Amino acid sequence: MQHRVVILGGGFGGLYAALALRKAPAEVTLIDRRNFHLFQPLLYQVATGSLSPGDICAPLRSVLSRQKNTRVLLGDVADIDPNARTLSLRDGATYPYDSLIVATGSESFYFGKDQWRVWAPSLKSVEEATTIRHKIFYAFEAAERETDPERRRAWLTFVIVGGGTTGVELAGALGEIAIHTLKHEFRSINPLEARILMVDGAPRLLMAYPEDLAARAEESLLKLRVRVRAGVNVTEVDDDGVTLRFGSGVTERLPAKTVLWAGGVHVAGFGSTLGARTNAPTARSGHIKVAPDLTIPGYPDIFVVGDLATIAGRDGKPLPGVAQVAMQGGAYAARAIVARLKARGGTVSLPPFHYHDRGDIAVIGRAAAVARIFGLHLHGLPAWLVWLFIHLMYLVQFQNRVLVFIQWGFQYLTFSRGARLITGTAPTDSPQLLYPDQRL
Amino acid sequence: MQHRVVILGGGFGGLYAALALRKAPAEVTLIDRRNFHLFQPLLYQVATGSLSPGDICAPLRSVLSRQKNTRVLLGDVADIDPNARTLSLRDGATYPYDSLIVATGSESFYFGKDQWRVWAPSLKSVEEATTIRHKIFYAFEAAERETDPERRRAWLTFVIVGGGTTGVELAGALGEIAIHTLKHEFRSINPLEARILMVDGAPRLLMAYPEDLAARAEESLLKLRVRVRAGVNVTEVDDDGVTLRFGSGVTERLPAKTVLWAGGVHVAGFGSTLGARTNAPTARSGHIKVAPDLTIPGYPDIFVVGDLATIAGRDGKPLPGVAQVAMQGGAYAARAIVARLKARGGTVSLPPFHYHDRGDIAVIGRAAAVARIFGLHLHGLPAWLVWLFIHLMYLVQFQNRVLVFIQWGFQYLTFSRGARLITGTAPTDSPQLLYPDQRL
Repeated sequence: MQHRVVILGGGFGGLYAALALRKAPAEVTLIDRRNFHLFQPLLYQVATGSLSPGDICAPLRSVLSRQKNTRVLLGDVADIDPNARTLSLRDGATYPYDSLIVATGSESFYFGKDQWRVWAPSLKSVEEATTIRHKIFYAFEAAERETDPERRRAWLTFVIVGGGTTGVELAGALGEIAIHTLKHEFRSINPLEARILMVDGAPRLLMAYPEDLAARAEESLLKLRVRVRAGVNVTEVDDDGVTLRFGSGVTERLPAKTVLWAGGVHVAGFGSTLGARTNAPTARSGHIKVAPDLTIPGYPDIFVVGDLATIAGRDGKPLPGVAQVAMQGGAYAARAIVARLKARGGTVSLPPFHYHDRGDIAVIGRAAAVARIFGLHLHGLPAWLVWLFIHLMYLVQFQNRVLVFIQWGFQYLTFSRGARLITGTAPTDSPQLLYPDQRL
Repeated sequence: MQHRVVILGGGFGGLYAALALRKAPAEVTLIDRRNFHLFQPLLYQVATGSLSPGDICAPLRSVLSRQKNTRVLLGDVADIDPNARTLSLRDGATYPYDSLIVATGSESFYFGKDQWRVWAPSLKSVEEATTIRHKIFYAFEAAERETDPERRRAWLTFVIVGGGTTGVELAGALGEIAIHTLKHEFRSINPLEARILMVDGAPRLLMAYPEDLAARAEESLLKLRVRVRAGVNVTEVDDDGVTLRFGSGVTERLPAKTVLWAGGVHVAGFGSTLGARTNAPTARSGHIKVAPDLTIPGYPDIFVVGDLATIAGRDGKPLPGVAQVAMQGGAYAARAIVARLKARGGTVSLPPFHYHDRGDIAVIGRAAAVARIFGLHLHGLPAWLVWLFIHLMYLVQFQNRVLVFIQWGFQYLTFSRGARLITGTAPTDSPQLLYPDQRL
């Protein structure tokens, strides 16, 4: 019987593992809860109306259809028996494995205040992105119809919690929406009245970046009328706004109908279960501390890659939860499995996983980005062009690349955002303002 | 004070009315529940994974942003006082008007069995289209994992209720999905096992088309493995399938996890309220019987255009509920208002509304369509090319035309459907099969 490799998750880690097993003499099964691979780095563009979900998603079956040794299954893994080497799905089905690659990722962390999620969606799934899109564009619509100045001001106040890459990208896009996209479009409000505030408890934004680049990013955000408040914590989020606590201990209530969450992540769901069943060492956030070969200590047949794992880089600091780490981890796990298969039970000494850090890049707006790449610190147009090129290059499927390229071209020329539909429901829709019929 | 024109609805009727009032010396307000114009004729392509919602929607504000005499409001009209000439919105706001153009359309009609809607979504909104998309592609995923042959067969059985243009287009697209798109993608099932059945109580499909074209359409559908059952009524729809009653009176239970509704329409909501408040004559389906100038008898300041109105064409039969009728009606109402404004209270004799029938066209699949155009009956490739050209031409906004054209090009060359995401929830998700996390 062929060696059975099961991969959990079709994100960057899982998909690149599957692709790297293309020619492996193994029976590969990729299980995901979704039928598509999501190109997460561009999800903020769906949330801000630049791209449609279809543009940044690739059906997993279609990506892997020609890979004859691989099957794709839609399913949600609930539990694992690491000694019997079986997985059980939530619907009761069980799947045995010989080697397992777990790439189920992480979830947004609300500092233990999960009730905030209702008012402050984060940016992890397509559904959350369209919810954020709903909230942003609905807020301007509601403001246009609101006659009370205070309530109007609350509709036009946007708070982004978290000053990492996602927060910076969301804030920059919001600034461009207020300044450029919606220009000429309203008759009662001026979209420039929008107040966009980015808060983070850390001493500055983009902590993962060198200080000079973070300063450049803040400059670019200021030009887009985004105010950055570092060292500020959020102590409350509800339907009407946020409560902020400043470093001095002073608290302030800020009425805001749109609060977006770009805070940290933690491990929950199957990731936690896996940690418990294998007694794996975990970080405080629940991330599994893997061995240098990305396996769980004591379980050489279970690889953990991407956002679920934590492992120190060469500088001793944990590797960041970015696509590059996941892709390289997935490919490494696949190579390790192939090497073991070739050794036919003999000893295999694979060098430990080594992350090739190609840098970091965050986009703020049109011709505005910051990048640390090949040891260089770039900002402005050069960084932005690098960003464009990298994202187009790594987008899965050629069709998506063409569609995204064209939409960026249109947006660059016309400042328009063609995909800014208000669909579905958003949790803070004010009941007194009517929104679309939601029978379905 | 300027003459106040209020337009209700941003579909084909309302949008074309607004555009025709571009230079009118009037204060124009367009109110819609959605912030976008939906190009309804291509909605079935969203439902079948060819296009993304953003590709066929145009933000109303963006379309009308340069039209200085026009404002757009997001709102849901609840009631009207036709004597005081005021509208009240569901949130309590009121808007006065001097002239009113009502283009709020119609709703899917479930023969009075509204509970069927849960199991058999229709194709009226973006949300319904993505629900249908979910159901179609989820059914294949569920079948792939189902081991019981009978349940697997139910997952692979698709029933389309209604043999009009929408039904034919959905059925044809489903056939192409089973034959082409999903080829090579599954390991347990063969997508060709899918049974696609289109039923209609009428004696044949496409009753609005000449008989020879309907026969051609049925031939094309057969090639796509779609079986057409005319003269068959649906007497029950539930979670597990449909009950059919044949002309002979025999009933048959058909297990099917995917039932799509392409039946008739009726008037509900504000359309009914308007009819009641103005004592307007209505058809059995609730459509308002308008005067030859598209106004409500006794209310020369209220125009009703598009799908909400019914009016006889030259042959005495009611005009169909198609985009062309709505567009021409909207433009006619706008011209009538402008003519009255020019007459400054003097008498205006506008010729009655006359519909320029440019024909009918329905697409079945690749190089397969039927068309009645300029008195010609076309089918196959010529009809399909005409269809392509017309739909691209009438799509609102240039960017949408480019995006749709490119996606059709890719689909033509590769048979792929890039937008086939399973997102959100679908009502018949079987609880024993796990589907995406739905916290939001």
